[in-house]
Amino acid sequence: MQEQIYHLQFAMDTFYFLMCGVLVMWMAAGFSMLEAGLVRAKNTTEILTKNIALYSIACIMYLICGYYFMYDGGIFLQGIAEIDVDATLASFAEQNEFTGDAVYSGASDFFFQVVFVATAMSIVSGAVAERMKLWAFLAFAVVMTGFIYPMQGSWTWGGKEVFGLYSLSELGFLDFAGSGIVHMAGATAALAGVLLLGARKGKYSKDGKINAIPGANMPLAALGTLILWMGWFGFNGGSVLKLGDIANAHSVAVVFLNTNAAAASGVVAALITSVVLFRKADLTMALNGALAGLVAITAEPSTPTPLQASLFGAI
Amino acid sequence: MQEQIYHLQFAMDTFYFLMCGVLVMWMAAGFSMLEAGLVRAKNTTEILTKNIALYSIACIMYLICGYYFMYDGGIFLQGIAEIDVDATLASFAEQNEFTGDAVYSGASDFFFQVVFVATAMSIVSGAVAERMKLWAFLAFAVVMTGFIYPMQGSWTWGGKEVFGLYSLSELGFLDFAGSGIVHMAGATAALAGVLLLGARKGKYSKDGKINAIPGANMPLAALGTLILWMGWFGFNGGSVLKLGDIANAHSVAVVFLNTNAAAASGVVAALITSVVLFRKADLTMALNGALAGLVAITAEPSTPTPLQASLFGAI
Amino acid sequence: MQEQIYHLQFAMDTFYFLMCGVLVMWMAAGFSMLEAGLVRAKNTTEILTKNIALYSIACIMYLICGYYFMYDGGIFLQGIAEIDVDATLASFAEQNEFTGDAVYSGASDFFFQVVFVATAMSIVSGAVAERMKLWAFLAFAVVMTGFIYPMQGSWTWGGKEVFGLYSLSELGFLDFAGSGIVHMAGATAALAGVLLLGARKGKYSKDGKINAIPGANMPLAALGTLILWMGWFGFNGGSVLKLGDIANAHSVAVVFLNTNAAAASGVVAALITSVVLFRKADLTMALNGALAGLVAITAEPSTPTPLQASLFGAI
Repeated sequence: MQEQIYHLQFAMDTFYFLMCGVLVMWMAAGFSMLEAGLVRAKNTTEILTKNIALYSIACIMYLICGYYFMYDGGIFLQGIAEIDVDATLASFAEQNEFTGDAVYSGASDFFFQVVFVATAMSIVSGAVAERMKLWAFLAFAVVMTGFIYPMQGSWTWGGKEVFGLYSLSELGFLDFAGSGIVHMAGATAALAGVLLLGARKGKYSKDGKINAIPGANMPLAALGTLILWMGWFGFNGGSVLKLGDIANAHSVAVVFLNTNAAAASGVVAALITSVVLFRKADLTMALNGALAGLVAITAEPSTPTPLQASLFGAI
Repeated sequence: MQEQIYHLQFAMDTFYFLMCGVLVMWMAAGFSMLEAGLVRAKNTTEILTKNIALYSIACIMYLICGYYFMYDGGIFLQGIAEIDVDATLASFAEQNEFTGDAVYSGASDFFFQVVFVATAMSIVSGAVAERMKLWAFLAFAVVMTGFIYPMQGSWTWGGKEVFGLYSLSELGFLDFAGSGIVHMAGATAALAGVLLLGARKGKYSKDGKINAIPGANMPLAALGTLILWMGWFGFNGGSVLKLGDIANAHSVAVVFLNTNAAAASGVVAALITSVVLFRKADLTMALNGALAGLVAITAEPSTPTPLQASLFGAI
Repeated sequence: MQEQIYHLQFAMDTFYFLMCGVLVMWMAAGFSMLEAGLVRAKNTTEILTKNIALYSIACIMYLICGYYFMYDGGIFLQGIAEIDVDATLASFAEQNEFTGDAVYSGASDFFFQVVFVATAMSIVSGAVAERMKLWAFLAFAVVMTGFIYPMQGSWTWGGKEVFGLYSLSELGFLDFAGSGIVHMAGATAALAGVLLLGARKGKYSKDGKINAIPGANMPLAALGTLILWMGWFGFNGGSVLKLGDIANAHSVAVVFLNTNAAAASGVVAALITSVVLFRKADLTMALNGALAGLVAITAEPSTPTPLQASLFGAI
């Protein structure tokens, strides 16, 4: 019966990673719709192609060699499809039994990580929207996800932390050493900050007023933001890394709660700012507020009072 | 080992609330797309702003004081981030052990409730589409979600039932006392009925014929309806309030089955009605049929023969 | 305590079917958006009506009599809402105890199957887009989902395998007898192949060059593809039929991993093909590549090296 309990905990934690991974994969749709909604109409098809291509390239490169460099797994994930049930049961003992680190399927671990890497590339993509050649960007994606990201990750965690260090977070690395999650979040925040600036480009550039971008499709942008809002539950919630005991399940729940609160307060803060500065409620500001709130909460999803962080992010 | 089983049941029920909550949050996107697809093109941006703003305001107000009024929780959810594992294990004994009421994370409870409140506000929003000033509506949302809804809820259930009484369901309260879920559903149905009428406004108003609303975007409306269809599984499924034993898991499954059947029969009934009355299959009718079926099933999601209810709703 | 473990496994497997079923239901939105995005603008409303109508008809027909023919269940699912907890616990003993076949709610089984049938009809729908009268198609759907599909299914598996044989897979049946999943997948692949050809119709028909289809809405098509990508995790993942022990949980994780890899490599292969043949990256090719990869992996989702299959599918 003790073994059956381990079976159930293994299954539960594996399923938790898979469901969070599905939500993170769904963020690719969010970025695609958000960017397609905000760019000029003539660039829509190119930006959609770029998003889908880079997500796919990131998945393939991380599959081929990224995971290998980062955690000494097999090239092409050799051996990941087999599992030794007895050895898995034995590993519960090594991991401090029931309430220790999660023991779960290596395949679900890879799945969550690969969608995470691909989503991180989507964030970079947003930063360079309408500014970079498609092929140059895709070549960059190959190198980034196949080599740079995993090698930096292996230098730092060598398989102990699930999330590697993102290349642009070198500065963050020096400042906040000690928590892999924070580094990851710092890098994400930095990149997403660029995304926000990038999205606004052209709106304020001419004479300081808000200019509607011709061809912008606001329903698509709103849909993209709400998709990201939904997917972010998986992004932050999956980072707790275990579901299967009371303390960890509670942590996951707190992260979901805070993620929602941060996005919501980002919207409210952005709307207040928008009314104060421009005398009207601007939808683009509200959407950016939601994203800023989500980015802010990613840095520390267990913070219980996300209001201040989100206000800061939104302004 | 008994404690480990409680750990697993706690984790499972918490995860169940979180996943259902994500689906309910996703309904906000459904309402946004449905309304953006059905209103005149010039109002699209305003209605998107309204939906995102009210969802966010509802989340924040319920976080700040709504939950406090309704269940005597802390203002700003003080203390919700901590959990005492031993006390939690002890509470299983109070709750009639394994097959009694669910013991799960308070944070997941709040998460499910806050998205529920925010979604209920979205339903109200639909009812007043194109009819109310944005700021008047948002001020109403602040008062409604921060004070009226939770105070009525506290009068009635005082923390015993998860869902409070909705303000417009006073009549329903007198008629059907005894089941919190039915009250909630009655109010939802009433409001959603207004939504349906509201959506049709302008289509039939001039001389009885169906007039296409200029600028209506049918793919968006269809997407919104399918998002709502998906999210409604979480809305009804989460209302069972427990997943972790055979009887409750089966109830959740029956609710999913019936929710799908009700939406589907709503569509079929609406199409038949549409062909009989107008000699053609009308997409708007089909979408409204799906929503009517979903609203009808919300009243009693464990009804095994949803066909009649849905037919009624659709006509 | 042994009984409590069975309770938990029952709840976990039931929840797994429900979550996968929700993802499969979501594929209906994917097909709707993909087809609405690729057809001429004047046909958009009709194709949306068709997709929503056929999904609903399939659900209702399978509910009324399809499940009855296929597994000798009750007409209108009589009795499915009740459950005998003691008998369910006893059935664990019949099923080789903990690591044997899954014991889960019959309602969750029906829910997963009904969304599967309805989605299969959506695939057929894609094949005949812009080619068939709406009413003729809907009448076909009634017969197909109410009688042909379940009767063939009952001839072959009689309730032992969850997925029945699809009518168009007779050839596949002779070739690959032995695995219900493969048959199902073969039929799906055949049909989806037609979908892909159908989608390209009009693009190449005139003089061999790529012609943009007037009114095509690429963001919608991309959204539809990403929705299908997301939903396919439930479609393939649910086919493992059990989550609740280590070996099965690992299988589910491998299926998720491979599904993602197949779609991604389909995109990459299609883009390479597109550049070689047409000297440019074509978004429609990339989207079709993703679908081809997903269809290819459906045939054998536990294949560990999906690259070749996807390359084949894409070309």
